[in-house]
Amino acid sequence: MTLEKVSSNRVSTGSLTKYKFPSKSLGGLSTQFNIFVPSSASSSSPVPVLFYLAGLTCNEDTGAQKGGLLNTAGKEGIAVVFPDTSPRGAGVEGEEDDWQLGTGAGFYLNATAEKWKKHYNMYDLVVKELPEEIKKADLGVDFSRWSIFGHSMGGHGALSIYLKNPGLFRSASAFAPACNPSRTPWGINAFQNYLDTKTRSSPPSEWLPYDSTHLLQNYQGETNILIDVGTEDDFLKKGQLEPKAISDLNKEGVEVRLQDGFDHSYYFISTFAPEHVSYHAKFLKA
Amino acid sequence: MTLEKVSSNRVSTGSLTKYKFPSKSLGGLSTQFNIFVPSSASSSSPVPVLFYLAGLTCNEDTGAQKGGLLNTAGKEGIAVVFPDTSPRGAGVEGEEDDWQLGTGAGFYLNATAEKWKKHYNMYDLVVKELPEEIKKADLGVDFSRWSIFGHSMGGHGALSIYLKNPGLFRSASAFAPACNPSRTPWGINAFQNYLDTKTRSSPPSEWLPYDSTHLLQNYQGETNILIDVGTEDDFLKKGQLEPKAISDLNKEGVEVRLQDGFDHSYYFISTFAPEHVSYHAKFLKA
Repeated sequence: MTLEKVSSNRVSTGSLTKYKFPSKSLGGLSTQFNIFVPSSASSSSPVPVLFYLAGLTCNEDTGAQKGGLLNTAGKEGIAVVFPDTSPRGAGVEGEEDDWQLGTGAGFYLNATAEKWKKHYNMYDLVVKELPEEIKKADLGVDFSRWSIFGHSMGGHGALSIYLKNPGLFRSASAFAPACNPSRTPWGINAFQNYLDTKTRSSPPSEWLPYDSTHLLQNYQGETNILIDVGTEDDFLKKGQLEPKAISDLNKEGVEVRLQDGFDHSYYFISTFAPEHVSYHAKFLKA
Repeated sequence: MTLEKVSSNRVSTGSLTKYKFPSKSLGGLSTQFNIFVPSSASSSSPVPVLFYLAGLTCNEDTGAQKGGLLNTAGKEGIAVVFPDTSPRGAGVEGEEDDWQLGTGAGFYLNATAEKWKKHYNMYDLVVKELPEEIKKADLGVDFSRWSIFGHSMGGHGALSIYLKNPGLFRSASAFAPACNPSRTPWGINAFQNYLDTKTRSSPPSEWLPYDSTHLLQNYQGETNILIDVGTEDDFLKKGQLEPKAISDLNKEGVEVRLQDGFDHSYYFISTFAPEHVSYHAKFLKA
């Protein structure tokens, strides 16, 4: 048992517990996550699970505290896992200097560039190591019923992780995700730095496995994706999100909604989070 | 028009706007507040209003961001006002040194002690000046339908303000309020410092107008009060809250509930906040 309990709070119909453990994916660094588990969950009666991936500068607390989603998760009887957004304290030169790279900006990928590859493997943490740790700890969570959502950088994470792993998740959703990161500034900056890039195509082929638009284009099979973006989102206006790249693919089972007047903040997320949780519940409890 | 818009975010069925203005109650210092107004509100069709008073160390953002109450307020068609918890930058010696006194700890009273009385008048700010400013700004809010709630120090504020002003509010509620502050540590410390205290009775008579237990004991007329306290609240265990002082009065229209396993955090508040908003809506829309 490698999980160490940091804190626990009663909330909604269950408890939110913060754990830490030394992560192999993150080169042995300690990482923290929060997990909400309804009181009804047990190893003999496990509940479905929903991962929430937060955005740039956030951590494992942000969605739990500001997301406004736990009451709905509690009512639906669904566990929710909130991972951190990057390794902490890797000691990589410059990792604290830019809010768009390094600490708080792991981009849910496995780094291949020499400088970052030892620690910056949030993809493996989220997709493999966290589920293994949670299963080992016997927390009453059933990973055969698993969905994923997130915000901004975490929306990119949720969509790309869903699309890279057909059949692993029941559904994915996102608030203001970076939909086409291989062609937009946050993603280009992250991929240039984190990924060992040898090809000269535009975008380089090494980046495409983390680009949801590219992944969806080539995706076979049923998709259950819901995306909300606010029309007054400054990052939409600055070309960071590009939801049109996904809606233009006209894929069945993919809904992209523009929400009038909403911005990039947690006020936007908390307005629609109950609806997103219910969307996932529909598939998780089917 | 003295209100200056600081920011605005679409949320729920309306918008949350942060304003600042120079407050007479606070000796001319600039103060900020947030106000949520449903889109349906207008000067010809104003909506009822609910004040949320936050606790020690918090500010005008805390309840708005972590309270989980705006979706219910939006559905019910109720405005919500989030004042700050103290003056900021009064320059009183020691005001930044103790989280239980000074900045972030205004205790919703009018100071009478020489050192504090110029600036520390949060009672007047909340009860008189904020409503006047909001009315002048014509934000579509109807103060003839007004209720108040809060957390911890803000729960003390909500209950004592409600009880000091019969007929002004339709209802009051509180999460983990300091119910009997003239006899418990936070209150004693605050009242000793803020209030010019000449009487030697225990507690001194100057403190009683801010003690909800004392006020309720002497209250005539109908009361609509709901109080929730978590059984695992450390401040309950430390004797800061004393809900029993209120429940022992056995007053009609006053419900005190102990919530099993909950603590003092916003996880507790956000679990029950929708129910509190609906409780107030019942009276505000009657």
